[in-house]
Amino acid sequence: MADHNNQTIRVGLLGLGTVGAGVAQILLDPKGRHPLLSELTLHRVGVRSLDKPRTLSLPPGVLTTDLAALVHDPAIDLVVEVLGGLEPARSLMLQAIGQGKHVVTANKAVMARHGAELFQAAQAQGVYVLMEGAVGGGIPIIHPLKQALGANRLTRILGIVNGTTNFILTQMTQGRGDFATALATAQSLGYAESDPSADVEGEDAADKIAILATLAFGVQVNRQQVYCEGIGGIQAVDLRYAERLGFQVKLLALAQRQGEALDIRVHPTLISQDHPLASVQGVQNAIVLGGEPLGEVMLQGPGAGAGPTASAVVGDVVNVAATLRADSGYHPLLGSGLTTPMPQLPTDAVQTRFYTRILTQDQPGVIGQLGTCFGDQGVSLASIVQIGSHEQLAEIVVVTHRVREGNFWLALAEIRQFPAVAAIPTVLRVWS
Amino acid sequence: MADHNNQTIRVGLLGLGTVGAGVAQILLDPKGRHPLLSELTLHRVGVRSLDKPRTLSLPPGVLTTDLAALVHDPAIDLVVEVLGGLEPARSLMLQAIGQGKHVVTANKAVMARHGAELFQAAQAQGVYVLMEGAVGGGIPIIHPLKQALGANRLTRILGIVNGTTNFILTQMTQGRGDFATALATAQSLGYAESDPSADVEGEDAADKIAILATLAFGVQVNRQQVYCEGIGGIQAVDLRYAERLGFQVKLLALAQRQGEALDIRVHPTLISQDHPLASVQGVQNAIVLGGEPLGEVMLQGPGAGAGPTASAVVGDVVNVAATLRADSGYHPLLGSGLTTPMPQLPTDAVQTRFYTRILTQDQPGVIGQLGTCFGDQGVSLASIVQIGSHEQLAEIVVVTHRVREGNFWLALAEIRQFPAVAAIPTVLRVWS
Ligand SMILES: NC(=O)c1ccc[n+]([C@@H]2O[C@H](COP(=O)([O-])OP(=O)(O)OC[C@H]3O[C@@H](n4cnc5c(N)ncnc54)[C@H](OP(=O)(O)O)[C@@H]3O)[C@@H](O)[C@H]2O)c1
Ligand SMILES: NC(=O)c1ccc[n+]([C@@H]2O[C@H](COP(=O)([O-])OP(=O)(O)OC[C@H]3O[C@@H](n4cnc5c(N)ncnc54)[C@H](OP(=O)(O)O)[C@@H]3O)[C@@H](O)[C@H]2O)c1
Repeated sequence: MADHNNQTIRVGLLGLGTVGAGVAQILLDPKGRHPLLSELTLHRVGVRSLDKPRTLSLPPGVLTTDLAALVHDPAIDLVVEVLGGLEPARSLMLQAIGQGKHVVTANKAVMARHGAELFQAAQAQGVYVLMEGAVGGGIPIIHPLKQALGANRLTRILGIVNGTTNFILTQMTQGRGDFATALATAQSLGYAESDPSADVEGEDAADKIAILATLAFGVQVNRQQVYCEGIGGIQAVDLRYAERLGFQVKLLALAQRQGEALDIRVHPTLISQDHPLASVQGVQNAIVLGGEPLGEVMLQGPGAGAGPTASAVVGDVVNVAATLRADSGYHPLLGSGLTTPMPQLPTDAVQTRFYTRILTQDQPGVIGQLGTCFGDQGVSLASIVQIGSHEQLAEIVVVTHRVREGNFWLALAEIRQFPAVAAIPTVLRVWS
Repeated sequence: MADHNNQTIRVGLLGLGTVGAGVAQILLDPKGRHPLLSELTLHRVGVRSLDKPRTLSLPPGVLTTDLAALVHDPAIDLVVEVLGGLEPARSLMLQAIGQGKHVVTANKAVMARHGAELFQAAQAQGVYVLMEGAVGGGIPIIHPLKQALGANRLTRILGIVNGTTNFILTQMTQGRGDFATALATAQSLGYAESDPSADVEGEDAADKIAILATLAFGVQVNRQQVYCEGIGGIQAVDLRYAERLGFQVKLLALAQRQGEALDIRVHPTLISQDHPLASVQGVQNAIVLGGEPLGEVMLQGPGAGAGPTASAVVGDVVNVAATLRADSGYHPLLGSGLTTPMPQLPTDAVQTRFYTRILTQDQPGVIGQLGTCFGDQGVSLASIVQIGSHEQLAEIVVVTHRVREGNFWLALAEIRQFPAVAAIPTVLRVWS
């Protein structure tokens, strides 16, 4: 590989599908992202077909079908693998590593089955294999396990790590049909593939929990031995009964230390409605990590999709770029980034919604007067109701739309002068 | 500093209070944690008083009141600052940096006000200042902002970053008294300090959002200009009205880009009950990060306390240790950790709870028969109820306590043979 300190870092991208296109889009448009991204170029992109229409326009000569040539190209420093499937993904990654190139992947199937082989090869070559995108889409989970949580004795991982099945279960729980109907909805929304078996049967979740357990506990996981039960047999009536008993049904992936053995499995599970995982809806993913002395943290977000997954993949690319730039000894990601000045919005100029409680004489027309005054100041209201009464005064609660703070306060100053207004005990902001 | 590749890395710890004792405890007991922790020693611990009784027993000679000597000790590679307050914390950190030592801190007050000065000094010396513990306790938030999320254009941070105030608001919302009562409860549980003003007035949250905004947007934040309103004026009646309107009241810290300016503020806020932050209860913290193409992720967990904060602080220590060991060029945290074999629990040996739905003839005594059979196999039941009926059969739902899977299946095999049992359509596991 070339000397990296002065020249651009060249990325070879294997795959330009859902995730690949998301990755390319970020690399081609680095402004406003991590400064290291401006030092990268997208050198080659490997696909199956040159004729397929692409939404993305790449510089000429970048697209190729010769994936072997890409991973052997001496100009390329780092290979991003987003082909999917076991082969040729595994072999191409091994070849890239053999050529001294770093590898970033989102391929949980390969990493769950051949992770040890790939990591060993990488260590021997002094390169990295990073895989933040393989689990939890855009949720930072691999990095925290490897870095911020290293002080802990981790004891447990509990997660909703497959968005397709969580979407189907959410639909069924909300009474929107049985399994087949919910699956069809998921497919029509692009949340399930035309062959949904890996998701529905829990195999995708099993790949992911195997990866997480390996990292959290520093152990080898035999992927074939991960007990795995899907959601195909779930009946709507059981979801209803579960709810009556205080539970939600979720496809949970879990791994925990049980004495000297690892308890690792994926199956539909009743979980108490009070548990934070119970309220994770639709295609969202969430992972709970437990350890000593940490207690538990939960990381939640979009578990799939072009944008979130590309966010994770390119996050890894930035990490690799940082180590290439850190040859000098100072690591750009651990050091503070440079900061630039930015004006802070004065409070009057802030746009926000407000809630205010106003005590008035209980007489007709007051609500109209209040509404008119807010309107005159350009403060648009979401609701104005007499919600209660307090010592013979009417309690009126006003909730505004998003307004300029300055205007709101001007209106309130006027309202305070109204003869019918006794007091304005509360003003709070509303988030939306 | 010494050559780091062969010898132990020496830590100087400033402060042995809540967080400091948690940090020392981890460093003195590294087994089962990140392997790099075994290569560290706790060289000196600086405190105010040598006579104060300590729960932790340190090796003789480690405790000192001479903090200046500690930060100048040439044997020390890395200084952990958990004194709190602005001075002498700031000066000691600057001196440590001046001596070429890395610094790890949990001090949000110093970092929000003097972060730029400290980072500049550190960069000039080629050392790091890390502060994962300063925001969100054990929640990994600083690392993800600096690393995994670098691909994004971050647009928004929204957080519950002060546990004391969230506890008080939760108490008040649950009808357990007014502000003064809830504050007293928080104090008696150790969730609020005897002088609670920094928490209650929102100043602590303002420190934290200033730190997060600096990292997320790469901008300088003028801490004095962060609008900051506390919860001291919140009345129970407004929490009730907010709930009737579909909101919860939270002390939100938020920062977002607004054109070319930064909108950054802390204030009590009505937030829709559907928003994931609305269900963050008690002393929990949670932070939502929004960006393009990520969408939104939420990170949630214990926002303070000895264990969680020490987890974050020592996570940073591991990161520094890794860069010291990475002089050879290969970064131990980016490379895969070594894995060891670990047996996987066979399914029969798993301990879990079960839910099962059994269809039986609608005749007396069936529930008793089922209960007896489970009991004979050592399967202890949480509940057994006739929950419905289905085509003239009784639908009986059984929920077990934690049992050995093997035993459960033996019982179920017997039950399947009962003349009164028509079918067992569903078996699901229950998490607890
Ligand atoms: N989609 C998600 O939301 C998501 C989330 C997390 C992780 N992932 C992982 O990311 C990876 C990619 O997923 P995806 O959804 O982006 O897949 P996809 O849309 O099917 O795209 C696959 C891409 O790889 C190319 N490709 C596949 N096999 C090839 C071969 N043998 N030779 C040459 N090119 C080949 C295809 O070329 P053509 O364009 O010419 O057909 C296509 O560009 C998978 O490992 C998946 O598990 C995906
Ligand atoms: N507590 C939490 O849950 C938490 C969570 C996140 C972040 N933090 C941050 O962590 C830091 C430490 O908090 P803490 O709760 O651990 O504080 P603490 O319990 O008050 O402990 C402070 C320690 O520092 C020592 N110390 C303070 N000033 C000193 C001085 N001038 N000279 C010598 N020693 C001095 C004290 O010595 P003696 O023992 O001799 O009195 C004590 O050991 C603060 O910046 C805080 O904001 C705390």
